Amino acid sequence: MSTDYKFQGWLGLDPDSVNGKMVWKEYEPKPFEENDVDIKITHCGVCGSDIHVLRSGWGPSDYPLCVGHEIVGEAVRVGPKVKDIKVGDRVGVGAQAGACMNQNGDCEFCADGIENHCPKGIPTYGSRYPDGSKAYGGYADYWRGSANFVFKIPDEIPSDEAAPMLCGGITAFSPLNQYGAGPGKKVGIIGIGGLGHFGIMGAKALGCETIVAISRTSAKKEDALKMGATDFIATDEDKDWATKHAGTLDLIVSTVSSPKMPLQQYLQLLRFKGALVQVGAPDDIVPGFNMAALLLKRASITGSYIGAPGEIKKMLEIFAKKGVHTWTNNVPMSAANKAIVDMEAGKARYRYVLVNEKHLK
Amino acid sequence: MSTDYKFQGWLGLDPDSVNGKMVWKEYEPKPFEENDVDIKITHCGVCGSDIHVLRSGWGPSDYPLCVGHEIVGEAVRVGPKVKDIKVGDRVGVGAQAGACMNQNGDCEFCADGIENHCPKGIPTYGSRYPDGSKAYGGYADYWRGSANFVFKIPDEIPSDEAAPMLCGGITAFSPLNQYGAGPGKKVGIIGIGGLGHFGIMGAKALGCETIVAISRTSAKKEDALKMGATDFIATDEDKDWATKHAGTLDLIVSTVSSPKMPLQQYLQLLRFKGALVQVGAPDDIVPGFNMAALLLKRASITGSYIGAPGEIKKMLEIFAKKGVHTWTNNVPMSAANKAIVDMEAGKARYRYVLVNEKHLK
Repeated sequence: MSTDYKFQGWLGLDPDSVNGKMVWKEYEPKPFEENDVDIKITHCGVCGSDIHVLRSGWGPSDYPLCVGHEIVGEAVRVGPKVKDIKVGDRVGVGAQAGACMNQNGDCEFCADGIENHCPKGIPTYGSRYPDGSKAYGGYADYWRGSANFVFKIPDEIPSDEAAPMLCGGITAFSPLNQYGAGPGKKVGIIGIGGLGHFGIMGAKALGCETIVAISRTSAKKEDALKMGATDFIATDEDKDWATKHAGTLDLIVSTVSSPKMPLQQYLQLLRFKGALVQVGAPDDIVPGFNMAALLLKRASITGSYIGAPGEIKKMLEIFAKKGVHTWTNNVPMSAANKAIVDMEAGKARYRYVLVNEKHLK
Repeated sequence: MSTDYKFQGWLGLDPDSVNGKMVWKEYEPKPFEENDVDIKITHCGVCGSDIHVLRSGWGPSDYPLCVGHEIVGEAVRVGPKVKDIKVGDRVGVGAQAGACMNQNGDCEFCADGIENHCPKGIPTYGSRYPDGSKAYGGYADYWRGSANFVFKIPDEIPSDEAAPMLCGGITAFSPLNQYGAGPGKKVGIIGIGGLGHFGIMGAKALGCETIVAISRTSAKKEDALKMGATDFIATDEDKDWATKHAGTLDLIVSTVSSPKMPLQQYLQLLRFKGALVQVGAPDDIVPGFNMAALLLKRASITGSYIGAPGEIKKMLEIFAKKGVHTWTNNVPMSAANKAIVDMEAGKARYRYVLVNEKHLK
């Protein structure tokens, strides 16, 4: 098979790289294995995780590194053990790349179809393979990695819109799927950003009866209603919001990562046996709360982490069928440094996507 | 039917009554209705709730009041609409007395068999019936109330041991039942008191593989092992306890009501999809925590509230069959004031039971 291409991309060399200082360089990918796929990248979404990892926000990062895990492009090399993907397919890969896939039959996570929780899982970038080689991400020309989390993109979904679905989309969709969002259900989505906008659109695609968008201000109200929200709460603008909406929601998906959340009031919104599912990853402790809310309502606080391969396929099918359109801000791959800085400044409406124009047909 | 008996008992007249100042007085019970039962009280457990309500700890109490909701005695009057109970039966009533029982078909809680969450539910004491009459508790000679939560006591269970099961027992048993405690499951019980000792014995009766008793010190270690604990953690004596036992438990039932709990470390003990179920009711906020524990493990924090009638029957059957013996400290009904003070001082090992000796045959 053809391997006459170079692996090069935007590398972060130190924590300062987050401040517009990534450099375009060639790097050595992992050795190609029988279950691997090489993707000629056309699009890569800019995820909040990229920023965290570039600046060593979740602990020291393994520089040099190439971030980006919302990758779409063309499969240009496919290992002999890969099923379902062939050279020339339009494919995507999300935040998780490898998992053991229960090849030895001893992984309860892969056996249960939740490979995203596999302890042998390899994140798409910033990690190392067992042989010590590095996993590089999608702010680049090519990506190489396991086919475990590589998916064909349905024809109905344009590549720029598909890319952000592969991390932002599934992170918001998975809890909706796990907790039975659908007809007759009343859900709340906290935070209207990259994840939250997928939460609102995902809840609509699943047919939820009520979709309450919850934000600090009403700045994004009009957008939220266009995405499919049926109601809107601006917590900084209505001091009685928690009382007014008390006991109304079956499920709340919290996409915010600021730990300064009004957790007690969020719990107040839940109905009997309601669940608050956190998907944003706060880097500090959230406020204390009174447990009485959980006792009397059997409500729960829980979390969800990206999504399983089966859920990603289901999401892509439903989003294709229901015509879900990612709100993208497309920028050229060459402008990756600016996109990171703008994303950090909160300018995304609602997901920056790097477009590798030289790879577009 | 015979009504030639007086309703008299230990009344709290103000918050100071918690300090050994309840007074023995006659009071007017609710009017007898067709679904009511009168119980000639032989035993009543002393529950932490009694102390909270006597001192208006959960908001202003409706004095005068008679506390006590772990009641066992003889049914001496039974309304014509009552099923399953007849005069002369040895019966008990727990923390919840009335519920609508879905008589109008419009209560989702009663329809689902979780009458303990019925919004029309009447607590066994300290509450008022729709006609304005008061519900009085079991530190008394007789109790009158709805048969909804009146249960026959299995022959195998002595009355003094049965009484504390009806609130303390079911509060600890219900979460074990709800979250699948049984063979192969590893559970933790936080707090070794009235509730916690039922948690340990309940987990053993259900056949759990591992039962870890968690306490601040090892003072109750020997007792916990006798109750059925297979392991013991003294959180004040082993600073590495959370790391040592990380990721080992499927289910934790937290019976403590102090809000000063090491919540983050408790979460650390959970396995994938594990649940921490709070049943003790802290009267203040618990500490903040980092949500990452919930995301990566899909773990949850939730709560449970007393138990449903079906669960109470199941518990009594299992406890009878497995020979669960409440660790009681029996004192005469005449010593109720001292029992309250001693209970508050933490002297119970593990449940004070008031014995109404004049009603023993």
